[in-house]
Amino acid sequence: MDEKYLRHLLELVRSGKTPVEDAMQEVRDLPFANLGFACVDHHRAIRQGQPEVIYGEPKTGEQIAAIAQEIARHGQNVLITRVSADKVDEIRKALPDIAYDTTSKLAKLLVSPIPLRPQTVVIVAAGTGDIPVAEEARHTLLMTGFNPAPMYDVSVAGIHRLMAGRKDLMQADAVIVVAGMEGALPSVVGGLVAGPVIAVPTSVGYGTNLSGLTPLLAMLSSCANGVVVVNIDNGFGAAMAVHRMFARTGGEAHAK
Amino acid sequence: MDEKYLRHLLELVRSGKTPVEDAMQEVRDLPFANLGFACVDHHRAIRQGQPEVIYGEPKTGEQIAAIAQEIARHGQNVLITRVSADKVDEIRKALPDIAYDTTSKLAKLLVSPIPLRPQTVVIVAAGTGDIPVAEEARHTLLMTGFNPAPMYDVSVAGIHRLMAGRKDLMQADAVIVVAGMEGALPSVVGGLVAGPVIAVPTSVGYGTNLSGLTPLLAMLSSCANGVVVVNIDNGFGAAMAVHRMFARTGGEAHAK
Amino acid sequence: MDEKYLRHLLELVRSGKTPVEDAMQEVRDLPFANLGFACVDHHRAIRQGQPEVIYGEPKTGEQIAAIAQEIARHGQNVLITRVSADKVDEIRKALPDIAYDTTSKLAKLLVSPIPLRPQTVVIVAAGTGDIPVAEEARHTLLMTGFNPAPMYDVSVAGIHRLMAGRKDLMQADAVIVVAGMEGALPSVVGGLVAGPVIAVPTSVGYGTNLSGLTPLLAMLSSCANGVVVVNIDNGFGAAMAVHRMFARTGGEAHAK
Amino acid sequence: MDEKYLRHLLELVRSGKTPVEDAMQEVRDLPFANLGFACVDHHRAIRQGQPEVIYGEPKTGEQIAAIAQEIARHGQNVLITRVSADKVDEIRKALPDIAYDTTSKLAKLLVSPIPLRPQTVVIVAAGTGDIPVAEEARHTLLMTGFNPAPMYDVSVAGIHRLMAGRKDLMQADAVIVVAGMEGALPSVVGGLVAGPVIAVPTSVGYGTNLSGLTPLLAMLSSCANGVVVVNIDNGFGAAMAVHRMFARTGGEAHAK
Amino acid sequence: MDEKYLRHLLELVRSGKTPVEDAMQEVRDLPFANLGFACVDHHRAIRQGQPEVIYGEPKTGEQIAAIAQEIARHGQNVLITRVSADKVDEIRKALPDIAYDTTSKLAKLLVSPIPLRPQTVVIVAAGTGDIPVAEEARHTLLMTGFNPAPMYDVSVAGIHRLMAGRKDLMQADAVIVVAGMEGALPSVVGGLVAGPVIAVPTSVGYGTNLSGLTPLLAMLSSCANGVVVVNIDNGFGAAMAVHRMFARTGGEAHAK
Amino acid sequence: MDEKYLRHLLELVRSGKTPVEDAMQEVRDLPFANLGFACVDHHRAIRQGQPEVIYGEPKTGEQIAAIAQEIARHGQNVLITRVSADKVDEIRKALPDIAYDTTSKLAKLLVSPIPLRPQTVVIVAAGTGDIPVAEEARHTLLMTGFNPAPMYDVSVAGIHRLMAGRKDLMQADAVIVVAGMEGALPSVVGGLVAGPVIAVPTSVGYGTNLSGLTPLLAMLSSCANGVVVVNIDNGFGAAMAVHRMFARTGGEAHAK
Amino acid sequence: MDEKYLRHLLELVRSGKTPVEDAMQEVRDLPFANLGFACVDHHRAIRQGQPEVIYGEPKTGEQIAAIAQEIARHGQNVLITRVSADKVDEIRKALPDIAYDTTSKLAKLLVSPIPLRPQTVVIVAAGTGDIPVAEEARHTLLMTGFNPAPMYDVSVAGIHRLMAGRKDLMQADAVIVVAGMEGALPSVVGGLVAGPVIAVPTSVGYGTNLSGLTPLLAMLSSCANGVVVVNIDNGFGAAMAVHRMFARTGGEAHAK
Amino acid sequence: MDEKYLRHLLELVRSGKTPVEDAMQEVRDLPFANLGFACVDHHRAIRQGQPEVIYGEPKTGEQIAAIAQEIARHGQNVLITRVSADKVDEIRKALPDIAYDTTSKLAKLLVSPIPLRPQTVVIVAAGTGDIPVAEEARHTLLMTGFNPAPMYDVSVAGIHRLMAGRKDLMQADAVIVVAGMEGALPSVVGGLVAGPVIAVPTSVGYGTNLSGLTPLLAMLSSCANGVVVVNIDNGFGAAMAVHRMFARTGGEAHAK
Repeated sequence: MDEKYLRHLLELVRSGKTPVEDAMQEVRDLPFANLGFACVDHHRAIRQGQPEVIYGEPKTGEQIAAIAQEIARHGQNVLITRVSADKVDEIRKALPDIAYDTTSKLAKLLVSPIPLRPQTVVIVAAGTGDIPVAEEARHTLLMTGFNPAPMYDVSVAGIHRLMAGRKDLMQADAVIVVAGMEGALPSVVGGLVAGPVIAVPTSVGYGTNLSGLTPLLAMLSSCANGVVVVNIDNGFGAAMAVHRMFARTGGEAHAK
Repeated sequence: MDEKYLRHLLELVRSGKTPVEDAMQEVRDLPFANLGFACVDHHRAIRQGQPEVIYGEPKTGEQIAAIAQEIARHGQNVLITRVSADKVDEIRKALPDIAYDTTSKLAKLLVSPIPLRPQTVVIVAAGTGDIPVAEEARHTLLMTGFNPAPMYDVSVAGIHRLMAGRKDLMQADAVIVVAGMEGALPSVVGGLVAGPVIAVPTSVGYGTNLSGLTPLLAMLSSCANGVVVVNIDNGFGAAMAVHRMFARTGGEAHAK
Repeated sequence: MDEKYLRHLLELVRSGKTPVEDAMQEVRDLPFANLGFACVDHHRAIRQGQPEVIYGEPKTGEQIAAIAQEIARHGQNVLITRVSADKVDEIRKALPDIAYDTTSKLAKLLVSPIPLRPQTVVIVAAGTGDIPVAEEARHTLLMTGFNPAPMYDVSVAGIHRLMAGRKDLMQADAVIVVAGMEGALPSVVGGLVAGPVIAVPTSVGYGTNLSGLTPLLAMLSSCANGVVVVNIDNGFGAAMAVHRMFARTGGEAHAK
Repeated sequence: MDEKYLRHLLELVRSGKTPVEDAMQEVRDLPFANLGFACVDHHRAIRQGQPEVIYGEPKTGEQIAAIAQEIARHGQNVLITRVSADKVDEIRKALPDIAYDTTSKLAKLLVSPIPLRPQTVVIVAAGTGDIPVAEEARHTLLMTGFNPAPMYDVSVAGIHRLMAGRKDLMQADAVIVVAGMEGALPSVVGGLVAGPVIAVPTSVGYGTNLSGLTPLLAMLSSCANGVVVVNIDNGFGAAMAVHRMFARTGGEAHAK
Repeated sequence: MDEKYLRHLLELVRSGKTPVEDAMQEVRDLPFANLGFACVDHHRAIRQGQPEVIYGEPKTGEQIAAIAQEIARHGQNVLITRVSADKVDEIRKALPDIAYDTTSKLAKLLVSPIPLRPQTVVIVAAGTGDIPVAEEARHTLLMTGFNPAPMYDVSVAGIHRLMAGRKDLMQADAVIVVAGMEGALPSVVGGLVAGPVIAVPTSVGYGTNLSGLTPLLAMLSSCANGVVVVNIDNGFGAAMAVHRMFARTGGEAHAK
Repeated sequence: MDEKYLRHLLELVRSGKTPVEDAMQEVRDLPFANLGFACVDHHRAIRQGQPEVIYGEPKTGEQIAAIAQEIARHGQNVLITRVSADKVDEIRKALPDIAYDTTSKLAKLLVSPIPLRPQTVVIVAAGTGDIPVAEEARHTLLMTGFNPAPMYDVSVAGIHRLMAGRKDLMQADAVIVVAGMEGALPSVVGGLVAGPVIAVPTSVGYGTNLSGLTPLLAMLSSCANGVVVVNIDNGFGAAMAVHRMFARTGGEAHAK
Repeated sequence: MDEKYLRHLLELVRSGKTPVEDAMQEVRDLPFANLGFACVDHHRAIRQGQPEVIYGEPKTGEQIAAIAQEIARHGQNVLITRVSADKVDEIRKALPDIAYDTTSKLAKLLVSPIPLRPQTVVIVAAGTGDIPVAEEARHTLLMTGFNPAPMYDVSVAGIHRLMAGRKDLMQADAVIVVAGMEGALPSVVGGLVAGPVIAVPTSVGYGTNLSGLTPLLAMLSSCANGVVVVNIDNGFGAAMAVHRMFARTGGEAHAK
Repeated sequence: MDEKYLRHLLELVRSGKTPVEDAMQEVRDLPFANLGFACVDHHRAIRQGQPEVIYGEPKTGEQIAAIAQEIARHGQNVLITRVSADKVDEIRKALPDIAYDTTSKLAKLLVSPIPLRPQTVVIVAAGTGDIPVAEEARHTLLMTGFNPAPMYDVSVAGIHRLMAGRKDLMQADAVIVVAGMEGALPSVVGGLVAGPVIAVPTSVGYGTNLSGLTPLLAMLSSCANGVVVVNIDNGFGAAMAVHRMFARTGGEAHAK
C-alpha cells in the first residue's frame, strides 16, 4: 500500500464508496504491512548526494555488480567496502567506471556530484600497519563530502612527533585515531583535544594484541573521558560516526 | 617557569643582562620542564562554566572533600562520580551544599551558573536495571548545560514502544542508548535515526551477559553503521562524548 | 491515536469535515506514532489466562508491588522472577495474596484461573544444585497451564538412573534438561528421545565450570542434533521456550 | 542376543532344558550386552521417510560414499552436511544420483519419497553472508518434509523491512532466525511473534564478532523470553530442532 | 522389577503358568525399566569398605544429614566434601560421631573399618595456600585406605628443596602435585619421576592466576609427558583418580 | 665429573695425595656441575626397550633424521610425533626402515624388540574425526609394549552403542576416551567403569567447540569423579599417562 | 649432610676408616639428598641486609608471626606482603616492633640495618587508585636499600603533567610505572626514557579494565620497545625486578 | 623552528629589533610546535653506534628498502625484524650488503662499527621450537654490542640439563628465558639466579598453549619474585629490555 493508494482509500471513504469499518480494517494493518513510505522518508534524508554502501566481503563480484548497477541507475553514488581486487575486476566488466583503492580495498562508483562539507576531520594513524584502516576511513569520508587530513605514522612511543601536529588536532571538528599494538594513542589525543575523538583499534601487532581485542579494550578503558570506540579495523564505521555527527547540520558548518 | 618569568628572561636578553647562549639553555628546557601555560590554555577552554570531575570510587570521603573544596575555591562546579552515600555524608561535613543523586551515585557542587546548551539529547534506556547508568549520563549532561530527555524502559522485545518515541529520536542532536542483556537496542535506534548514536552497554543481566561484555561486543558489531560505543556502565563517558561533539560549537547551536 | 480516534477521523473524512490531505497527514504518522493497537492485538493473544512477568532482580519491592497491582487490576495473573524473600515481604504488604517459592525465588499472584494444557513436559535435573533452576522452569510452566513432571538428581555419571525414567522421557511432548558441571546430560537425553529437548546450563560446579559457561558451550556443541539451549541458570527461559512451542496449539493438544 | 534368542531361551526354560538360575545369568547381562532391539525401536521411529545424516567435514569422499551406499541400500534417504564440491565429485562416482547445493554445501540422495509436513516454517536471514547457513537449514528441512519460506536480507538496522513480512512471521509454526554481526535480529523477531523462535548465530562479521561468539552470547541474553539458540553457523541444528518440535505430531499438523 | 521378580517370572515360564510371549513382553522392557540390579553389581564393587561421597556445597545441613544417615544405616562410610563448619554443626545433631577437618572442609562418618592399601602416594603442595586442596586429597585417600605422605611448601622457585625429597617421589606409586601461581611444579616433578603424576591447579595467586585457569592451562601444556590434570582446587578428584588407578588391584599391591 | 672420577678423587684423598680441603672444593661443585650420573640412572629406567620420542612438528626433516640416527645407534627405538609425510620422505633417505602411519602422523623406527605388557587398555573414540587422535594414542602404546583395543565411533548421542562394549570397558586396566564436540563421553564412561579413565579432548567440531577448549573444560568439570584429562588432541600424552601408571609394575601385570 | 659432615667423611676416607666404595655411596646421593650448602651459598648472597619475604595473604596471623620470629632470630629483616590490619594486630602480640603501612598493606620488622643503594628509582603512578600498588613497590624498595622517588597522579590524558617530571625520569636508573584503566602510561614513559621501564598493570577501573587484564595486555603490546611487565597489582614484583637488576652491582653504583 | 631560529630570535630581542611581546608569542607556541631538538637529544643518545629498527612485517620490501637507505645514509646501522626472505630479496636490489638470518627472520645492514659491551647475557631456550625467538633476541643483542651466550634445548622436564649450566647462569649480568608449552622455565631459572630474568613466552605448543597465552600468564604468575615478562614470541623486545638495563652504563661495565 503506497501513499497513492492511501489517498485513493480516503477518497473512497469520503465519497462513501468504502464504509468506515472496511477502511478501518485496511488502515489497521498498515503499520506493519506497509511501513514503506516511512522508509522512503528516511532514505530521502540519506540520499542527498550520499553513497549507498555495499559490504563486499561476503558477496560475489557478480552479486556486487548487480546491486551497484541498480543503485547507480537511481543516480546514487556507490561505495563498496572490503572488496578484493579480483572481485573488482569482475565488477568492472559491468561497471567500467568503478574506481578502486588497493590500500583500503574500497571501490567507488561516482554518478552524481558530492556536496562538500565544511567540517575539518583529522585522521591519525599510529603506525604504517594501521594505514589501510585509516585509508578506509579517509575514502569513506571523501565519498560523503568531507576532506579529511591524514596524520600518519604518529607513534605513541615517540610522543614528540604527535605534539608537532597538535595545532591541527585541536582545531579539527572531529579526530579519528587509528591504532593497533596497545591502543594508547586515543588516550593521548583525547587528553590534547577537547573535540570528538573516535578511536579505531586495529589488529596490527602480534601475541597480546589478540587480533585487536587488546587495543579495543584499552581504548574503551581510556582515562581520557568521552573517547568513543568502533569495531576492530573498522575505519568505515569511524567515518560513518563522523557522518552521523554532522548529519543534521548538512552542508552548513557550525560557526567557527 | 611561568609566563612572567619568560617575559622577564626576554627582557633580560633585550637589556643585554643575560647573554643569548644562557637564554638558549633555559628556553631549550622549556618544552618539557614547563608546559604549564599550555595546560592553562587547555583548561581555560574547559573551565567556561564546566565542572571539574572527581572519580569517587577509589578515593576516601576525606580525599574527595579536599579536592572538591580546592576546585570550588576557584569558582568551578564539581561533579563527583561513583560516590557512595557514606562518603557523601563525610564530604557534606566539609561541603554542606553538596547535592547527591542516589540512583546514579553522582554528587554535585554548584558554585557558578551553568550556561545552557541548545542541543537536544535523548537518553534511551532499555530496562529498569539500566536506569542508574542512564541517570549517570543525564546528570552529567545537566552539569554541562544540556537538558537531556529520558526515554526509559524501552525494550527491544517490545519494539512497538520504541516506535512511539521515534519522532523525538529522529529530531535529537544526539542519542545515548543504554542497554544490558544482549545490547540490541542501539542497532535498532541506529537504524531509525540518522544522527549520532552513543551506545552504553550495561552489566544488567546474568549468565551470558558476562558482566556487560556481551552487549559491549554486540554494540561494537552493530550492523547499524556509525554507532559508537563507550565502556560498560559508563553513562558518564557517554555524556562526555556528547560534550565533546558540541565542545566547539559552545552555546551557539547549529541551525535547526 | 487509538482505534476510536481512527474511526472518528475516517468518519470526519466521510462526512467531508476533514479534507483527504489532512487525513493523509495524520495517517502517515500513524505507523510509528501509534502502534498501540497492534500491540493490543499482540497482547490479547498472550493474555488468555497467561501471566504477565516481572523480572524482580533489578527492581525494589515497592516498584514490583506497584507494577503487580496494576497488572492484577486488569485481571491478569502475575509471575515475578528472581525476587528475594525480603522483597516479597515488602510486596506482601500491598498484595497479601502473593505466593512465594523459596527454592526457585519465584512469586505468583493468581487472580484468574489458568486454562490447563494437555502437553506433557518432563524436567530433568542432573544434581541437587540444579534443582532451583529446574523449579524456576516448573513453576513458570505451572503458571502457563502445564503440569510438568520433575525427574531430579539424574546424574550422567550414573546413567543407569536415567534409563529407568526413559519411557516417560520418550513420551513427553517436550523435555527440559537442567545441568551444571560439564553439561553432558542434554546430549544423553537428546540421544534417547526424538522430541524437543531444551538444555539449561547452570552455574553449579567450580573451577572449570566457569560460572556455567562450560556447560553452556558444551550443550551448544552437543552431538545430539537439534538440542536447543537457553541462557545460564535460565529456567524461566526454558519454560517460555516450551510455552512458545505450544503457543499456537493453545489448549488443544496434538493427537497422542 | 536378539529377540529370537530370548524367545528360544524362554522356551528352553519352559521346557525345563535350561534351569532358572542359568537363564537368570543370561538375562542379567541383557541390559547392557544387548540393547539392540531398543535401538531398533528408536530407529524405526526415525526412519519413516526421514534421512540418515552424514557429517561430511571430517570424512573422506570415499568414506562418505561407502556409508551413503549402505544407507541407501536400506531404502533410506541420505543427507550429507558440510561436504566440499571436491568430495561430492568423488562420491558421485559411486552414487551418480547425488544432488549437491553449493551454497549450503549439502548433498542429498533421494531413494524414497519424503512425506510432506503441514507446518509452516519461516527462515529469516539478516544479511547476504548469513544465507549459506540459512540454506543449510532450509535444505535440511526440505529433506524432512517441511517446505520452509525464506525471508532473507532482513537487517535489524532497517527494521522497516522486517515489519513488511510480519504477518508471515506471526502465522508460522516455527521461525528460524539466522544472524551474524551483533545477533540482534532474534530479539526483534521474538518480540513480534508468539511462536517458537530458534536463533542461529553466524560467524559473519569481523573483529568483535569473534567468529560468531558475540551473536551467540547476545542471542542467549535476549530480552525476548523463550528464544532458543543453537551452535554458531549451525543451520542444520536449527532445522533438526524444528524437526524435534513436530516429531511426535508427524504428518498430522495441529489445528489452525 | 528386581531379581526376585525375574526369578519368579522365569519360574512361572518354566511351570507353564506364564506363556513365553507374555514373558517376552516383560523382559523386553527390562533393559531400561529395571537396570537396578546391574547398578547393584556396580555398587557392590565400589562398596567394599569404600565411602559413599556427598558433595556438600549445594546442599543444606539437613539434606546432608538425611543422606548420610541413610548411607550409614547400610553400614557404609560417608565422606562429605566442601562442607562448612556451620552445616557440620547441624549435621552433628543427627550424627554426633561425625568428624570434621577445618582445613580441607571434609567431614567423615566411619561406621565400618577401611581396608588398608599398600600403595604409596605422595602429595606435593607448592605453597602454604595450596595446603587446603592437598589436605582434601589426603583425607579422601585416607578414607579409601591409602596413607599418603604429605610433602608441603615445596616451591618451584626453590627447586633445591624439592630435590631433597626426590627419593620418596621416585619410589611413590603415584604422586599428586598441588600448585597455584603459574603451576610449574608438576612439570618439574614429572621430569623427576617415571610413575603417575596427577596435577591439581589451585586458585592461589592473584591477577594472572585467573582463579586457577593459568596453572590449569600450564599443567595441560606441560612438557613432562603423561602428566594428567583434574579441575581447579579439586583435591578430591585427584584422590579419586588415584583410587581408580588401583581400583582393580584392590588390597593386593603390585610387586615392588 | 663422572663416577670414575669421583672414585679416583676419593682414592686420592685416602692415599693422602689430595688434601681434604681441595676435595671439599671439588665435591661442593658436584651437585650442579655434574648431575650426569643421576640422569643416567633415570634414563636407564626409561630405556629398557622403551622408545625415545621426538616431537616432529617444530623440527625440519633433516634435524629429525639426525636425532633419530643418534638414538638408533644406541639401540633404542624411536617414536616421532606430529611429523608430516613430506618430512618422513626426507627422513627416509637417511633411515630407510622408518615406518609411517598417515592417520596419526606418527613415524617409528624399530631397532630393538619391545617387551610386551600384560595390561589391557581400551581406546574409545566418539566420532570419525577423533580417530587420528585415538590412533596417536594407540600407536604410542604399541611402541611401549601395550596392545590397546580400539572402540571407535561410539557417540554419546547413541549411548546404546557404548553399552554394547561395556564389558570390555569394565575389564580394562585403563581406558582412554577421545572426544570432541561437547566432550561428554568421558563422563559416561567414567560412570560405567571403576578403573582409570584418561580423557582426551579434540578440536573436532565447530563454533562453540572453540578448537577443543569446550570439551577440555567439560571433561575437567566431569561429574564422574576421578576422570583425568590431558591437552587437546594429545593422544600421545594420554598414552604416556597410561605408560606412567604401569611404569613401576613393568612387564609383570597385577593379578586378574 | 652439611659441609661439616662432608669434611668429616673425607677425613674418614683419608684415614682409611671409611672405604672408598662406602663413601662413593654417600656422595652419589649427595646431589639431590643434600643440596643444602648450595642453597646456603645462594642465601648468603641474598641475606646481606636483605629482608626475607612472607606472602601474608594465604596465611593466618599466627602462622606469619611464627615464621617472622624464626627469621628475625637469625638477624634478618622481615617483609610481609598483602597482610590485613587484623592479622598485624595478632602478629604484634608476638612481635611488638612490627611496623605496618595501611596503604600498601605491607608490614616490616627491622632487626639489622639496611645497606643503602646509590641507584635512583622513580615510581610513576597514573591515578589515585594506583597508589596502593605503587606504595607496595616503594616500601619493598625501601626495605632493600633503595630510596625511590614517587611521582603520583600522573595521568596519560593530561600528558603535560608527565612532561614536567621528565628530567627526573630520564636520569633514573630504573622507572616503575603503575597504571590501571587502559595502561597507556608505560608506553609514554618508555618513549621518553632510554633506561629500564617496569610496567605494573592494576585492577583500577571497571568494565573493560577486566580486573587489570586489559592494561596488562596493553603494556605487553606496548610500542615502546623493551618495556617489561609484571603481574597485575604486583608492586612487590616490580620492586624485586629492580632489585634483580642491581643485585650484582650491590652497593657500588655504576658510574653516572 | 629549529635551534638556529631560536638563537636568531633571541638576538633580535637583544638587539631590540623584535619586541618582547612578539617574542613571547613565538616562544609560547614552542613547546608543541617545535619539540624537534628535544627529539634530537633523545635520538643522539640512542644513535651512538646503535641500530635504528624497522618492524618489517606490515611493510612492503620497497618501503623497507627506502627507510633503510635513508637511515644508512646517516651512518647508522639498520635492524629489520620479522622480515620474510621474499622481502629481503627485494630489499637486496637496493641494498646489496644486507645480511639475513633465516631462523630469526632478522635482516641487518652494518654501516658503522658497533661498540662492544662488557656485560654477559645468557639466552636460555626451552625447546627446539623456541630457537627462532631466542635467535631474534641474540641477533638484536649482537647489533647493540652484546655477545650473548646461547643455552638452548634446556627443557624443564629434564631439569638436570639446566643444572649443568647453572654456573654460567648465576654469573650472567642478565638472563633471557624463552619458553613455550607451559612456560615453567623462567620460574626455575628465577629460583636459581639472583640477577635479572626476562621471560619470553612463545607460541610453541598446541591446544592449551593458546598461541602463547598460557606461558605468558604462567610467567606473570611466577612464584620466582622479580621475573619480568615481554610479549609472546617477542625476542626482540627481550633484547631491548636488556639494552635498557645497561643503557646508562654504556660501554663501561659495572665491577665484577
